[in-house]
Amino acid sequence: MIETTIIEKKNIKMRKPVLIEGLPGIGLVGKIAADLLVDELKAEKIADIYSPHFPHQVIMQKNGVMRMIKNRIYLAKGKKRDFLILAGDVQAVTSEAQYEVTGKMLDYAQKKGVSLTITLGGYGTGKVHDKPRVFGIVSNKPMVEEYKKYGIIFGESKGSIIGAAGLLIGMGKLREMPGVCLMGETHGGFVDAKSAQALLEVLCKMLEVKVDLKKLDARVKAGEKFAKRIEQETMAAKGMVHPGGAKHDLSYIR
Amino acid sequence: MIETTIIEKKNIKMRKPVLIEGLPGIGLVGKIAADLLVDELKAEKIADIYSPHFPHQVIMQKNGVMRMIKNRIYLAKGKKRDFLILAGDVQAVTSEAQYEVTGKMLDYAQKKGVSLTITLGGYGTGKVHDKPRVFGIVSNKPMVEEYKKYGIIFGESKGSIIGAAGLLIGMGKLREMPGVCLMGETHGGFVDAKSAQALLEVLCKMLEVKVDLKKLDARVKAGEKFAKRIEQETMAAKGMVHPGGAKHDLSYIR
Amino acid sequence: MIETTIIEKKNIKMRKPVLIEGLPGIGLVGKIAADLLVDELKAEKIADIYSPHFPHQVIMQKNGVMRMIKNRIYLAKGKKRDFLILAGDVQAVTSEAQYEVTGKMLDYAQKKGVSLTITLGGYGTGKVHDKPRVFGIVSNKPMVEEYKKYGIIFGESKGSIIGAAGLLIGMGKLREMPGVCLMGETHGGFVDAKSAQALLEVLCKMLEVKVDLKKLDARVKAGEKFAKRIEQETMAAKGMVHPGGAKHDLSYIR
Amino acid sequence: MIETTIIEKKNIKMRKPVLIEGLPGIGLVGKIAADLLVDELKAEKIADIYSPHFPHQVIMQKNGVMRMIKNRIYLAKGKKRDFLILAGDVQAVTSEAQYEVTGKMLDYAQKKGVSLTITLGGYGTGKVHDKPRVFGIVSNKPMVEEYKKYGIIFGESKGSIIGAAGLLIGMGKLREMPGVCLMGETHGGFVDAKSAQALLEVLCKMLEVKVDLKKLDARVKAGEKFAKRIEQETMAAKGMVHPGGAKHDLSYIR
Repeated sequence: MIETTIIEKKNIKMRKPVLIEGLPGIGLVGKIAADLLVDELKAEKIADIYSPHFPHQVIMQKNGVMRMIKNRIYLAKGKKRDFLILAGDVQAVTSEAQYEVTGKMLDYAQKKGVSLTITLGGYGTGKVHDKPRVFGIVSNKPMVEEYKKYGIIFGESKGSIIGAAGLLIGMGKLREMPGVCLMGETHGGFVDAKSAQALLEVLCKMLEVKVDLKKLDARVKAGEKFAKRIEQETMAAKGMVHPGGAKHDLSYIR
Repeated sequence: MIETTIIEKKNIKMRKPVLIEGLPGIGLVGKIAADLLVDELKAEKIADIYSPHFPHQVIMQKNGVMRMIKNRIYLAKGKKRDFLILAGDVQAVTSEAQYEVTGKMLDYAQKKGVSLTITLGGYGTGKVHDKPRVFGIVSNKPMVEEYKKYGIIFGESKGSIIGAAGLLIGMGKLREMPGVCLMGETHGGFVDAKSAQALLEVLCKMLEVKVDLKKLDARVKAGEKFAKRIEQETMAAKGMVHPGGAKHDLSYIR
Repeated sequence: MIETTIIEKKNIKMRKPVLIEGLPGIGLVGKIAADLLVDELKAEKIADIYSPHFPHQVIMQKNGVMRMIKNRIYLAKGKKRDFLILAGDVQAVTSEAQYEVTGKMLDYAQKKGVSLTITLGGYGTGKVHDKPRVFGIVSNKPMVEEYKKYGIIFGESKGSIIGAAGLLIGMGKLREMPGVCLMGETHGGFVDAKSAQALLEVLCKMLEVKVDLKKLDARVKAGEKFAKRIEQETMAAKGMVHPGGAKHDLSYIR
Repeated sequence: MIETTIIEKKNIKMRKPVLIEGLPGIGLVGKIAADLLVDELKAEKIADIYSPHFPHQVIMQKNGVMRMIKNRIYLAKGKKRDFLILAGDVQAVTSEAQYEVTGKMLDYAQKKGVSLTITLGGYGTGKVHDKPRVFGIVSNKPMVEEYKKYGIIFGESKGSIIGAAGLLIGMGKLREMPGVCLMGETHGGFVDAKSAQALLEVLCKMLEVKVDLKKLDARVKAGEKFAKRIEQETMAAKGMVHPGGAKHDLSYIR
């Protein structure tokens, strides 16, 4: 295998699909949102994506059967248009690999007549957010007005977006495929399901679907624990409080 | 040379061959097992595998003749079906290289009509094992029952398998080539011939062949020495015993 | 996208164009010069260059619209011949990538009938320069005499030129495309607009154009501040003076 | 430029040429020998080798003219057969690159009817040698006897040969092109012209040519100075002598 390969399980009909990407990234915000969407919309897996740019590893499953590391494409039926959800284990690491994988995905999306691409991710701030905001960035100026109404904040996020969430929109634009990237405000130092909830709230309005956000409550609580510890440590580092038993067991998520 | 090349020495007939892989890996468990199998079954070398993804080095042999770094394919005759044994000096390092080399090997295996792939490796635990168990992972659910009877333990190994032992099964599955990966329990910090013995015991039952496992006894003893030293050092580090003259000369095997 | 792609916006006529390159490099000398040239000559953007060898990132702009990381080609009209100016966000990082991107650019330049290539960069000395000199290096011996008259110093710069400024001339020579690389003397440890001014003075004479160099005065002053701090720190390190409040906030530019 | 390119200056006739390689390597032993051979045999440069796997740099020459980093092929006339000498600035760094460059060189050599390949290098021992021996390694067993008569020592060098000196012979063997690698014993920590002299003595006998080895005397002395310092430091480190003013300014050559 020398290039990324999409193996389609079934050749399903779909109507003007919206492509929604949520792969692992900062705070796992996009991945948590996409995975819940797949569950809640009872989406069907229609394709596997294998790539020589993914780690040369296979995963041992509890049932004694191995599986390749991969990305997956799911299909969910919507009212007017259907949803293609791109989820998975990993993103490619190098620049060359990311451009190749994204190009292959856009080839597929174009063939399927994708009318809009929505990518999901986290916007790292280094701060803990009680009410994470949702930032957006689009491929064309007129889209700013169109998507503001969903409560997405435009023009306040700065810097660059690393990986699939940015490249799918950027490279899509070169093919005249419009897209919007939604980013949930997040600390960046822990898995942030609360930010994913905020993201999903906006997304569900956009897609006109319903998702039970309470399904994430347990993960939100786990994240809040981490967040509290981080805040205490930060304050302790500044000489403000004694952190007690807090230890350095924060899991950093890239 | 810009891609992996398999140069076949002879075009030999073979019956429904089983592909058995044992390349260098954790504890050298798979390599030791495969190399002994080659010797004991008097397998004939039928092909060399060269790759630009192997180190850019040649090996100086005692007789004054150099040879390229390579992998080798051996053929041994079995009762009902023959055995193709994949052994060698190295594995490719990067993901892209591993996918390419494995793809080339599977092309060859498919052409030869390989009916089953068995890969051999170590399962690193960080502990010393008196009686190493043999874990298995297969490409399809029904195979679990089929191989349990040989004493292989399924569903207890966790995480991922790195390199050829995993990819050959994983990528083979995409071509509908069934496979099983056998992993001998091993510490991971030294060359473990005892784990290779355990692996071979199971493998010989599966293949219905006989191999003199005592040939590995000297290497088993050398490994046990290392193991004892590791255990003493670990205990010493925990403040339990004084390790005496034990020094840090453990060779770590990737 | 698996190779560098030049997307031309318009198919404009041009007369015997001179290609002028100023991408990010040491002290940002070349980039500052090229960017000012684009502004002052009211050059029109005629092409975008995208590459899988650029970072896998997109840039979030203030207006809420993202854009890919890229290089750009601008066209400005000159008296006798026109100017193609190559500017942009980044250079490729690895050798292989640099050769590929430069090759694509030269393909384009050749098709457009480029008669001369001028590349702009900094010549790092590790010293602060009150009056930065401009060093030159050409593709063929007779060019030395031809360009000396503009005040360019030949034969005093040593070592090698890394990246596009060197490769465009070097690889161009293999296609019999003559070129000259201009390097403004610079410290290397900070953004040096003063060196860019010196470079532009020479370049404007060569191109017979006028550019308002005062537009860089603010950046020159900012650079001089850094330079003073560096000098103080260097002397302090040698035990000559106490640097007072000087801190290590020098931005190092590659 | 996406692959290694050999640009031949002239299409010269040659008789059963012997390919002699001496690129930068351990102790620069091979490079020094090849470069002197070029000078002494008044060899003519007949080809340049450019590669995207060489550093993305150009070299500034004293005369104000730049040149690409490259390898070169020279042709010298011999009594019965001619000599193709491969010399140059660098070797490629990665495995993939080394295999590609070597493959291209062998394509060229094959086309030119090369009858024998001789590669030159150093054999690093970590010791200083008063009378460096010359080790050899060949592609086929019968060659050992054939080359022993020149004073080359076979079967005493161990381990592997890294880079072009090994790959040219190893990959050449796959094309049935016989070769011998000559290695001058060397410390490895400094440029060793004395080892190059030893190498050339053997080589001149093999090629039936004369080379004035005194041309290297100045470099030999410079090397001996380094060697003495290294020995003193080593002994000092073992507590045997006080090294006096010796400082750590040894240049390590890869």
